[in-house]
Amino acid sequence: MVQELRDDTEVDDVRVSRTRRAVGQTALRILTHEGWEALSHAHVAASAGFSRTTLYTHWPAKIDLVVLALDAVRDMPHDERTGDVQTDLVSELTIFRRGIAELRLDKVLMALAQWGATVDEVAAIRDRVVQDGESVVRQVLADIARDDELEAAVAMLSGAVVCPVLMHGTLPTDSMIEHAVRIVLRGLGHPGSTSPTA
Amino acid sequence: MVQELRDDTEVDDVRVSRTRRAVGQTALRILTHEGWEALSHAHVAASAGFSRTTLYTHWPAKIDLVVLALDAVRDMPHDERTGDVQTDLVSELTIFRRGIAELRLDKVLMALAQWGATVDEVAAIRDRVVQDGESVVRQVLADIARDDELEAAVAMLSGAVVCPVLMHGTLPTDSMIEHAVRIVLRGLGHPGSTSPTA
Repeated sequence: MVQELRDDTEVDDVRVSRTRRAVGQTALRILTHEGWEALSHAHVAASAGFSRTTLYTHWPAKIDLVVLALDAVRDMPHDERTGDVQTDLVSELTIFRRGIAELRLDKVLMALAQWGATVDEVAAIRDRVVQDGESVVRQVLADIARDDELEAAVAMLSGAVVCPVLMHGTLPTDSMIEHAVRIVLRGLGHPGSTSPTA
Repeated sequence: MVQELRDDTEVDDVRVSRTRRAVGQTALRILTHEGWEALSHAHVAASAGFSRTTLYTHWPAKIDLVVLALDAVRDMPHDERTGDVQTDLVSELTIFRRGIAELRLDKVLMALAQWGATVDEVAAIRDRVVQDGESVVRQVLADIARDDELEAAVAMLSGAVVCPVLMHGTLPTDSMIEHAVRIVLRGLGHPGSTSPTA
């Protein structure tokens, strides 16, 4: 028998889930464009078109709004892995760059870093977001490096994308990303990596 | 003939220079511990033990206080270069780590990055601070890499120090810094660099 109608609970779940997504996207936009101070239930409610009561009912604390905002970040897709280490790393760093360009992931990271040092709850959220973000790079490198060498490689590949933004206010070019991946793979003694050409 | 007494202008210069340094250190402390909002002439004057009039006379705008604060950062010493590329890079990254631990350079960089995107004057200051900070690493790598490859290597070495702080709230260990330098040098085909051991 085919179930044609969802029951009321499911409809409610769908509605809450849709609200959650809309509230998260609005909270993220406020957080990255107007800053931490501007993030309030009143402002999110007005911007997303929901009542304040709805927001307070489901997400009573400001930190709940931050969590929703970061769920919107975590929704960012990873590409399918091809199995070629160089291709997969370039692809991941390119996605990270897009996250900075489109979602202002750099501002999210900086905001999380600044609050994270003082608020345990925020530090826990940051760790979750970073863990998600770094997961593919870690998996790809897991066969090639380990322990402190792996940590150094992961930090450097993130740095290849974040540092141009943080230090110079510019996104890395495709060529910079490709060079970064080649340097790291060659530095780790990975046989498949070709020598930089320029 | 030996000049034994400085004339009045020189005495004034010395006094202003001393005041400048004290005000800069106080402004930096406020900036990194209390944040951008807390940085005001009144607060700096009270904390540093000078009159507001003195501060307003020499440094009338808030941006002037920011410049002074960053001069305090730029005073941070670089070690003497030994000529050994690996040793010199490890030494530079270790100093960068100390700047983060002691002067909260990470917070300075994040604050500059956030204002820099919107305020031209701040972007100019950031560029000057970063240029100073990166100068030794660039010089050391200049014979080994160039153009986008050099940019990628510089960004990654900065990332080896900044990313653990930004992403995980922890400073890199000595071992991580050593691995990072080895990976980059080997990745750039530098003959003197030894293979990572762990």
